[in-house]
This record gives sequence, structure tokens and C-alpha cells, in this order.
Amino acid sequence: MRIHVINPNTTAAVTQKIAAAAQAVAAKGTEIVARQSKAGPESIEGFVDGAYSLPGLLSEVVAGEREGIDGHIIACFEDPGLDAARSLARAPVIGIGEAACLTASLIAGRFSIVTLSGISVPAIRHNIIRYGLGERCASVRAAEVPASALDDPKSDARERIATEIERAKAEDRAEAIVLGSAMLADLAGPLAKDHGLPVVEGISAAVKLVESLKALGLATSKAGGWAPPQPKGYLRGLGLAG
Amino acid sequence: MRIHVINPNTTAAVTQKIAAAAQAVAAKGTEIVARQSKAGPESIEGFVDGAYSLPGLLSEVVAGEREGIDGHIIACFEDPGLDAARSLARAPVIGIGEAACLTASLIAGRFSIVTLSGISVPAIRHNIIRYGLGERCASVRAAEVPASALDDPKSDARERIATEIERAKAEDRAEAIVLGSAMLADLAGPLAKDHGLPVVEGISAAVKLVESLKALGLATSKAGGWAPPQPKGYLRGLGLAG
Amino acid sequence: MRIHVINPNTTAAVTQKIAAAAQAVAAKGTEIVARQSKAGPESIEGFVDGAYSLPGLLSEVVAGEREGIDGHIIACFEDPGLDAARSLARAPVIGIGEAACLTASLIAGRFSIVTLSGISVPAIRHNIIRYGLGERCASVRAAEVPASALDDPKSDARERIATEIERAKAEDRAEAIVLGSAMLADLAGPLAKDHGLPVVEGISAAVKLVESLKALGLATSKAGGWAPPQPKGYLRGLGLAG
Amino acid sequence: MRIHVINPNTTAAVTQKIAAAAQAVAAKGTEIVARQSKAGPESIEGFVDGAYSLPGLLSEVVAGEREGIDGHIIACFEDPGLDAARSLARAPVIGIGEAACLTASLIAGRFSIVTLSGISVPAIRHNIIRYGLGERCASVRAAEVPASALDDPKSDARERIATEIERAKAEDRAEAIVLGSAMLADLAGPLAKDHGLPVVEGISAAVKLVESLKALGLATSKAGGWAPPQPKGYLRGLGLAG
Amino acid sequence: MRIHVINPNTTAAVTQKIAAAAQAVAAKGTEIVARQSKAGPESIEGFVDGAYSLPGLLSEVVAGEREGIDGHIIACFEDPGLDAARSLARAPVIGIGEAACLTASLIAGRFSIVTLSGISVPAIRHNIIRYGLGERCASVRAAEVPASALDDPKSDARERIATEIERAKAEDRAEAIVLGSAMLADLAGPLAKDHGLPVVEGISAAVKLVESLKALGLATSKAGGWAPPQPKGYLRGLGLAG
Amino acid sequence: MRIHVINPNTTAAVTQKIAAAAQAVAAKGTEIVARQSKAGPESIEGFVDGAYSLPGLLSEVVAGEREGIDGHIIACFEDPGLDAARSLARAPVIGIGEAACLTASLIAGRFSIVTLSGISVPAIRHNIIRYGLGERCASVRAAEVPASALDDPKSDARERIATEIERAKAEDRAEAIVLGSAMLADLAGPLAKDHGLPVVEGISAAVKLVESLKALGLATSKAGGWAPPQPKGYLRGLGLAG
Repeated sequence: MRIHVINPNTTAAVTQKIAAAAQAVAAKGTEIVARQSKAGPESIEGFVDGAYSLPGLLSEVVAGEREGIDGHIIACFEDPGLDAARSLARAPVIGIGEAACLTASLIAGRFSIVTLSGISVPAIRHNIIRYGLGERCASVRAAEVPASALDDPKSDARERIATEIERAKAEDRAEAIVLGSAMLADLAGPLAKDHGLPVVEGISAAVKLVESLKALGLATSKAGGWAPPQPKGYLRGLGLAG
Repeated sequence: MRIHVINPNTTAAVTQKIAAAAQAVAAKGTEIVARQSKAGPESIEGFVDGAYSLPGLLSEVVAGEREGIDGHIIACFEDPGLDAARSLARAPVIGIGEAACLTASLIAGRFSIVTLSGISVPAIRHNIIRYGLGERCASVRAAEVPASALDDPKSDARERIATEIERAKAEDRAEAIVLGSAMLADLAGPLAKDHGLPVVEGISAAVKLVESLKALGLATSKAGGWAPPQPKGYLRGLGLAG
Repeated sequence: MRIHVINPNTTAAVTQKIAAAAQAVAAKGTEIVARQSKAGPESIEGFVDGAYSLPGLLSEVVAGEREGIDGHIIACFEDPGLDAARSLARAPVIGIGEAACLTASLIAGRFSIVTLSGISVPAIRHNIIRYGLGERCASVRAAEVPASALDDPKSDARERIATEIERAKAEDRAEAIVLGSAMLADLAGPLAKDHGLPVVEGISAAVKLVESLKALGLATSKAGGWAPPQPKGYLRGLGLAG
Repeated sequence: MRIHVINPNTTAAVTQKIAAAAQAVAAKGTEIVARQSKAGPESIEGFVDGAYSLPGLLSEVVAGEREGIDGHIIACFEDPGLDAARSLARAPVIGIGEAACLTASLIAGRFSIVTLSGISVPAIRHNIIRYGLGERCASVRAAEVPASALDDPKSDARERIATEIERAKAEDRAEAIVLGSAMLADLAGPLAKDHGLPVVEGISAAVKLVESLKALGLATSKAGGWAPPQPKGYLRGLGLAG
Repeated sequence: MRIHVINPNTTAAVTQKIAAAAQAVAAKGTEIVARQSKAGPESIEGFVDGAYSLPGLLSEVVAGEREGIDGHIIACFEDPGLDAARSLARAPVIGIGEAACLTASLIAGRFSIVTLSGISVPAIRHNIIRYGLGERCASVRAAEVPASALDDPKSDARERIATEIERAKAEDRAEAIVLGSAMLADLAGPLAKDHGLPVVEGISAAVKLVESLKALGLATSKAGGWAPPQPKGYLRGLGLAG
Repeated sequence: MRIHVINPNTTAAVTQKIAAAAQAVAAKGTEIVARQSKAGPESIEGFVDGAYSLPGLLSEVVAGEREGIDGHIIACFEDPGLDAARSLARAPVIGIGEAACLTASLIAGRFSIVTLSGISVPAIRHNIIRYGLGERCASVRAAEVPASALDDPKSDARERIATEIERAKAEDRAEAIVLGSAMLADLAGPLAKDHGLPVVEGISAAVKLVESLKALGLATSKAGGWAPPQPKGYLRGLGLAG
């Protein structure tokens, strides 16, 4: 099967990190097709970046559909455009925030999310409540680390992240950590070792959920809010409708 | 004061209807500046139309800000882009769905929403829960009327809407009706008369809330999720950041 | 239009403060008719004061109705008697607690309420949950300041209030402050300046909501719990029923 | 011990019915002191009657306290003044609505409330949500029976009540019935027999809860919202404070 | 009447403590029949102990039924097997966790639970949410005291419990304390005295609730989830079905 | 990897059906080890069967752990013993009710559960609320079909199930169906075809979730309520602790 991992920002280095995280857990026989939006934000933090990421993201969804892709992953923790993508796709669509949090709920009574920037926190909180995980999510914490610092060996990014994880354990009684940004994908293993509790990363979690849905023969129901849009003129103009 | 009423679709006839509804309740001294998106869906029903409306909508928000507008109204009942618009604006931003439902909660213990198309229902339900009005909203009903039928004297649009209102009264014990589409704006008065209960329409409700916030000297807090976005390259490219 | 601002306590100095706050934001053409209860508590803090305020408050509501008033405001943050007043009135009735919190929800993702006395906190919390704003209200804090201290230049009232506001910002991540007492009405402006975030005051917010409902032609639905009471003997005895 | 059963309306026939229901389950050694308000509504249906019942009700609470009563019951299903009464009393105070619903939750997964008049339904619903029983209460149904009809052998009151109970069983899957009015107290036994499921009546339930609290040595905590009111002038004027 | 107080663990000393607590509040005419499980955990802390306690516990329930007992109490704060016991019994069944928390809700706006071991906390939290008391329970705190230390005069058990109670008062604004373990039954009185607020203990609370249900003529509804199980072979094998 | 699929009842025919459902979706390289409890109920419907299934079920969990199994599935839709099994296992444990509902939430806005017997409904509802899916689950419906009828070609079992599915679509607006019993496992495919919407079955869903957790390197957190039990005597007696 082929899984379409869509980085809804335009930064190639992030797409590579995402592709590697997806590849690392893909089953034999799963091909990871990682792409990024052709236009839009270079990173997504908060509501404005999320809104502007949608056209680029949805174009990739439709492109993937036309290639007969077997499933889509929206590789941004804030899960932008998840409902719209599900409406446009016949194949399943999974957001990495949703994937990480549902997966964490299977292995921990209460988990905390550690994200990079405080501006993402309200969007993440909205999602948590919508996904019904309000009781299970002990806290959403921001390390206030700029994305650029993550790969800078001189930055204190790792220390800041470690501090929030330890606070989540001590103050919020978190039993597992969810990494709240696609850019943290490569840290799940090391952080789990350092802090002695499960660390869930969303890209890999989403790959397994898409593979699962495919194996189960399940795709998005078209009976409700995720029915295809009416073929209005603007969609034809974008080349997205008949 | 000047209120920017943004029709986030591209249909001029709808913009005129919206402008008329806004004008009808504007205080003396309030200037209504009604505009529509320059690109995007010709009408907004459901998640895909909502997603594609955002760039056009947000461009209008920023344009209004540059003119020193005193407040913005997003004139689509599904309240697309409300969080992003609040992040981009210094002036207050009100969605007509939010405005109508909060206003209804002041005059009715339980209200029902009657919208045009079933594909809008899940988006509206999400908003109701987020606004904390789950206990107050007795039902969300769709008359399954195409927008085009509303102004067609031979259609049964009015009968279908009347049927849903009567069902809301009888089956859901609705004490007031909220009109779930900007395109129904001109029907609030006649429907209230026909059905003998308050009928709340969102454009007019939003105008009064924006005027109120202005009079109170209140604007969107910039201390949380509605802080301005970082001035990333893509925003500069769109002419939206310094 | 004429708005009836009812101070449900019997202290004239408070009525004057309330009248001033209402007058300050009233639209041209709005006449503020500020009155106080003829009997009852001299201030309202907690459930007992709230209960004993009702007969005096409701008498004023009925008196206002007989004069053809266009709307009523219950000028106590705990919103005593709101349901009963809506049942007795044909004109809209707004509580200042409800008005302040709904208004705050339009400009802040999360707000904190700062009130004078801890004995008011449970009543306020009940209201917040009933209004559906549990997720939006970050905290309810009491400065433990006696009302009399507010106008005493030697008291530490202002310091105590400032301390709670700063704690709400730092510990509760409040993005706006709601002033939890009618007696704080004159402090909204100075506190907003001092603390650098929006401060919402309920009397002014309620004036704008009543003006709005009037402009929208909306009044309390009589189809549910706010239907007029049966004309029982006791109401006739009080001169309140036909 | 002596239990103060307060009928917060002024109708002696109801007080007798209430006294009989209390007496029927009182333990040996429990003295029932049933009284009614000296002034106020002749029956309580909805918010206005509830509000006007408070001064008369609270005067009885204070009078009972002065006699050293061991516990108070507010014998109206809408539980008016429960918070205020708890603030004024050292002895425990139980509302019959609260007593009936908590008791029903011990013997039925889901129960329905059948009350007399639709105007009481919103007040009852508010209480149910506040008591945390929203998931357990399958429905609140009104038989639309005037209180006067209950003792009129020619009325269809019993048929109407029976109809609502059968609907609650069939449509709402109720496993027990809670009688939603003090005036139905004498029907619990016959209705349980007729309909084949437990029928809970609040006066008797409240008597047992008060006896229980006394036996346990428990009384209302004075550490929060039920702390005594400040001894303001109006309370002294009413003879209710030192 | 005869009340069956079932200690679902196998430790006789605990059964004695439980019996004493039950006896201390039993009405004249109530016979306390305290028994313990014949097999299973020697104490119950957390989900595994709870699961393994069920067969022993349910056998006692059925044995009690056959003797015509008037009510059962499950004397473990985590309320193991409450639903199953209600299905097997004709007489009412009360869990001491449920009894303590409902009783506390009658005398305190917010209460905190203090239990012995942190491994019990998640099970208790689940129950609190299911009982609808999420808003009323300020915290669940564990003193991290081994049961064996309670009767060891040299241990610091009492200090640890006192510390958590003081924290609950200061940090969580608890207005009453619920003792979260049957093994703390004898401390309710002394702790109430020491800490100056009501302390609720579940065994005694449950005795009074069972006595109350008996007096009210109420028993578990058999119309829903607590209907008797089908008489399957395994139940016959256990001697538990016809 | 080896997945331990535990049928917590003692009926071999059901175990075979379960094994077949698991096998049908197992990845290459996944070995399905399907077993049934050695003692306990022959089928699980409602709370009593659930309680008596636990010792047999947990013995299988521990046996699997000793063999170094990679994950456990509790193959009963009511998810009995899920918390206790997680405490006893180092490998992940998934309940099929949880698996089916979480999976359904990825492909449908709202789903309905169709189970065999009404006595299972309350247990399923409790789980739905605990899993946070209350808003997503449109209804829990019972076809009232005895398990034995499922394989009887003369029974009306299939018609009854079809009727409930059609009602769920029409009355509850279900967008997908979750099969609420392990015994329905072989019907997912045919029912999806007949009714034209996704049908989710829990055994297959659980297999994919266990495979996913293994691939992700995740196992149950031992930091909270799922910590291993203390090695008490009874566990040693059962051969379950050191």
C-alpha cells in the first residue's frame, strides 16, 4: 500500500524528518510518499499558519487521491484541515495529533503533551476536547523552543524540553508524554530512555493507523459531515471537481 | 464607527443581502462596509467550502485592518476562520453563528438552529459545543433547501423551513429559532410572525456585538491563542506581514 | 429607549456608581433609569444575601414593566433572580455576571474573574457552569477586600486586587480579567492600563446587550421556563398580577 | 431527634400531605415538625414562585435553628433556597428534589422524573445538571395536571400521570420513576404497584437522609459557600442576625 | 433489619474494624452481619486486587440473599463489583465509596478524598466521574501509608494523613474530607476534631443509606443493567443459579 | 510477533470465530494465539458475567506474559478487566470494544453500536463515556438476539440486526456501525455491503492496534493506575506473583 504523508508546510528539511519517522515504522509493503505543500507557511504554529496551510494541504490530498493513494496523513500536530481532507478523500485521513493522543490513551491513564511554542496550545486544547480526551490529557506544555533551535547543538532546546517533561511527571502526574510537534519526531526514542516513561510521536502512530484501516477495509464514511463537497465552480476552477 | 462585514463567499447577491441585514440594525454613526472575498467558494456549506474560504476571508480582514476598521464580522454561520481572523486583527472579530447563538441564549432557555443543508450540521455542532451551548441548543435541523431556491417563488423552500421550525417547537421544545445561514437573513421577521416565537439572525446580532465592544473599548486579547502570528516569509509574500 | 438598571441592594452610593457605569457607555437616545431595591440587603455577597434580595429586585422589575421600560439589568455579579425576572418581564433582562462573561468570551480564549469576597465564589462558579463557560473561565479569584475599603484611600484594596490579577495572568494564563462585582465598575479602565490586558466590567457590557436586543427586536421567549407565572393569589396580593 | 419539614408554600392541605409522608417513614424517636411558610406563594411552580418563596422559607429555617432543630427539609421538588438555607443553618438541610434523585441513583441506572406542570421542568433540569445526575436522568416529563385536580376524583390526573410513566418506561428506558412534586407524595406506593418499577418520593427520602446525617454526626461545612452570612443590617432588621 | 457488611478482602482484623464502624451507627433494630470473603486479596489497592476480589465478594452477596438479608454493603472504598452485586441481589447494595461521596455532597460544596495508596487513585477517580461528582470532588490525595502502619504507634501514618488533609484545605479549598479507605474508619472522629471540618467515612454512611432504602421500601430496579443474569451453566456450577 | 487473543468465556466455538476474525487481518509475521478462559461464563452479557470472567481472563493474561507474548486482546465487547489486565501485563492490552469505537471515530463523525442483548447496554454506555466518545456515539442499540440464534438459519437474527442498523441510520443519523459483540465478528463484511456504510468489528481492529503498538515500541505505562500490583499473598497463592 502507499501512504501519503503530507507535510502541510513548505520546508523540505521538515518533510525529510517526517518521511524518516514514517519510514521507520512502515510495514514491509508500505510505501511512504512524503510530500510538502507547494505554497503556504514554512512552519505551522497557531491559528493563522493553520488557516493558510489549508489550500496547499488540500491540493496534495486531491493529488494523492488521483494517484489512487491508500491513505493520507496530515503531518502537523495541530491537525489542520482534518475535516476538509476527509471530505475530499475516499481513502482514510489521519492527523498526527489525533493519532498520537489516541495511541497514548491505550497505554497511559493520563498523558501530557509537550509542544514547542505556546501559540500552539489553544489549538491543541480545542482538539483534545473535541477528541473526547479532556479527562486523559493531564496538561499541554510549551517548551518555548524555536523550531530552528532543535538542530542547533548550542541551543538549550533539549534542556527546555526535558524540563517540561519532568514537570509533567511531577506536577501533572503524566504517565506518558505525547510529542506535540512533527519536528520532534526524532526525539521520541531518546526522550523515552532519558525520562523513563513512554513517549508517543504522532507520525509513526498515524502510519500504523492508516495501515490498520487499510487492512480492515475501512474508509471514511460519506454519510455525514465528511460527504464530498458539492462540485461548485470554485472547485472546478482549482481543478478539484469534475 | 466602521464595521467590516465580510461575506466569505464570492457571490455578490449574498453580499447585498448581508449588507442589507447589517444596515437595517446599524446604529446611527455606524458605517457598514460590506465586502466579499475576491476568490474562493461561491457559497459555504460544510468543511471543504469552509477551508477554501479562508485565504480570501483573511485577506479581507487584513485589508480592513489597514484601513483602520473598527470591527469585523465573518458573515457565514459556520464561523470559518474565526480564530485566525482574531489573531490577525487588532479590532474585534465576531462570527455570525457565535453571535446568533449567544444572543439566543439571552432570550430563550433552549433554541433550535434551522440551516439550509445537512452538510453544514456537523460543523455547526462542533461550534455549539466549543461555545459551551450544548445544553442550550435543542437541535440543529436542516431544511435541505438549495440556496438558489430561496429566492425562487415556485420552490417549496419556505414550506420546508416552516416544517423544520414547527418540528423544533413540537419535538425539541425549542423556545426560539436561530437561522443557520446568512442567506436566511431577510426571513427573521416574517418567520417570527408566522411561528410565534423569537427568531434570531446572526448578521444583525453580530453588528450589535461589534458596536458594543467598540463602545466598551474592548478588543481581542493578544495574550493567548489570538496573539499575532510570527512574521514568517509566507505572510510577507502575501503582503500580510511587515 | 429606556433601560432599567436595578441595583438589587439598598445602598444608594452603589446605585450611583452603577448608574455612572451604565451612563458612560449608553448610546445617544438611551435613557438610564437606575434604581435600587426598596428593601433587602445593603450589599450582596453569597447565597443568603442573594435570596433576600429577590422580592425587592422583582418588585422593581414589575414596576419597570408597568412603565413600559425597554429592558432590565440586574446589577449584581452573582445574577440573582435572573430566571424569575425573565419570567416576569416582557422586556429583555440581562444579568451583569452573564453579560461580562459572555462579552469576555468574545475577546479572550480564557478569562479569570476577580471578585471581592470568597463567599461569592461558589455562586459565581455555579453560574459559569450553567452559562457553559467552564472551559473558558480559567479561575475565580477573591481579593478578600471589604466593599467599604474600595473607596478608602488608606486601604490596601487596590494592591490586593492587583495581586490577584497578576496571579491570574501568571498562574492561570488568563488572557482577560472580568471584574466580579458591581462595586468595581469604575476600576475597569485603570486596571486594564495597569495590567496590560482587557478588563471587562458587567454593567457596561449589560447596557450594550440590552440596547442590542432592543435594536434586534428580540425579547424573552415565553414558550418555556420563562413563561409568565400563573396569576396566583400571592402575586395579586403583592400587586404583581392582574 | 426533631426534623423540621418546611413546606415553602402557604397551603395547609399540602403541609398535611407532606407531614403524613414524612411521618410514615420517620424512625422511632424522630419527631416530625411540619410547618409552612407564613407568607408567599400558595404553590410553587417555576422560577417566580420559587423566588417569592424564599423569605418565608428562610424565616422558618432560622426559627427552627433557634429551637435547636436537628435538621431541615425543604419540601418542594424544585429545591428553592437550598444554598441559602444551608448558609443559615447549623443543622443539615436537604431538598426533596435532591433527596429523591440521589436515592433513585442508588437503585436505578436511569430514572425519569414526572412532575405536574411544564413550567417546573427548566428549574428541575438545572438542578439535575448541578447535582451531576445528567447521565442518570433519562427525562423530565410533565403530566400537565393542575395541583387541584389531584384530589378531584373526576379529573383525569391519575391517567395523565400513568401515561407519562409508561412513556418514560417505553421511550426513555427509565428503570425507576421519581415523583417531581411534593403533592404527589401519597402516590408513590400505588404507582409502584401499578407500573411495576420503583417509584421514589422525595419527602420520605429526605427524612431518611436527615436522620442519617444526624446519626453520622455530620452537619453542613462552614468552610465555603455555605459559611454564615455577614451580620448585615437587613438581617438584624429581620431578626435573623445577632 | 439485617445488613450484610461484606469486607471483600480476607483479613479478619479489617472485618472487625468495619464491623465496629457499622455497629457504631446502626439503628436500634438493625443487626450488622459483617463477613469477609472466603478467598481473594488480603487487601484491595488498585485494579488487580479489585478484580480478584469479585468472586469471593459476589459469593457473599448470594449467600446473604439466601438468608433473606435486607441490604448489602461493599466495604471497600473503590466500590468493586457494585454493578454485578446489584444484578445478583434483590435487596439494595451500597458501596462505601459511593455512600461517602454522596453523603459529603450533602454537607460540603467541595470535598477532597484522602486515601492510603496512590495505586488506588485512578480507580477512585473513575468512580467519581461516573457518580457525577467531578465538579464537587476537589482532589483525590494519597497519603502513601501502608495499611499495616495504621495501627503501628511508631509509624508516621497519622502525620502523613494530617498533611494531606491540610493540603486539601489550603491548596484545593476542600470544605470536607472523605476518608478513602475502609481501614481509616476509626479515624473520622479524631480527624474531624483535629482539622476542624467534617470528615465523612463510608461504612457508617452506607449503613444509614441501606437502612433508609429499607424504610422507604425501595430495592434495586430490575428493569435495566441490574436485571438478574441469565441462569447460565457456570452460575449453576457455582451454586449461584437455580 | 505473537498476539494473545483471549476469549474471556469458555465456549470453544466462539474462540474459533474470534480466532478467524483475528487471523483474517493479521499481518504476515503476526502469529495469533487464541485461547479461552479455563473457567467462567460460557458467554458474557452484562455485569455479572463480566465479573465472573475476570479470574479466568487474568490467568490467561499472566500465562501469556510468561510466554513472552507481544500483546493481549480481550475479545469481549464490554471490555471486562481491561484495567486489571493492563496492570498485570508488560505487553500492551487492548479491549475490542475500545478498539472498535476508537477506530470508528477515525472514519465516522457519529457511529451507532448494535449489540445482541439489552443487558449489555449499560456496561457499554459506561465504557463509551469513559473513553470520551459520548459525543460521537449516536446510540447503543440491542437487537435482542440470543447468541445461539446467530448460526441458526431459521432464526430471524439477521433481520433483527438489519432492523437496528437501519434505525440507527434513519433515527440516529449514524454514519458507521460498530458491532457490539465478538459473536458478530463474521458479519462485518456482509452488513457493510447490505447497508451501505462502514461496519467496524472489534477483534480485527484490536489486532491492528496491538501490531501498531508493537511496531511503535510502546507498552503500557507503569507510572500510574496500571502499575503492577503489590506481590500480595493471594497472588502468590494463585501463582501470579514472585
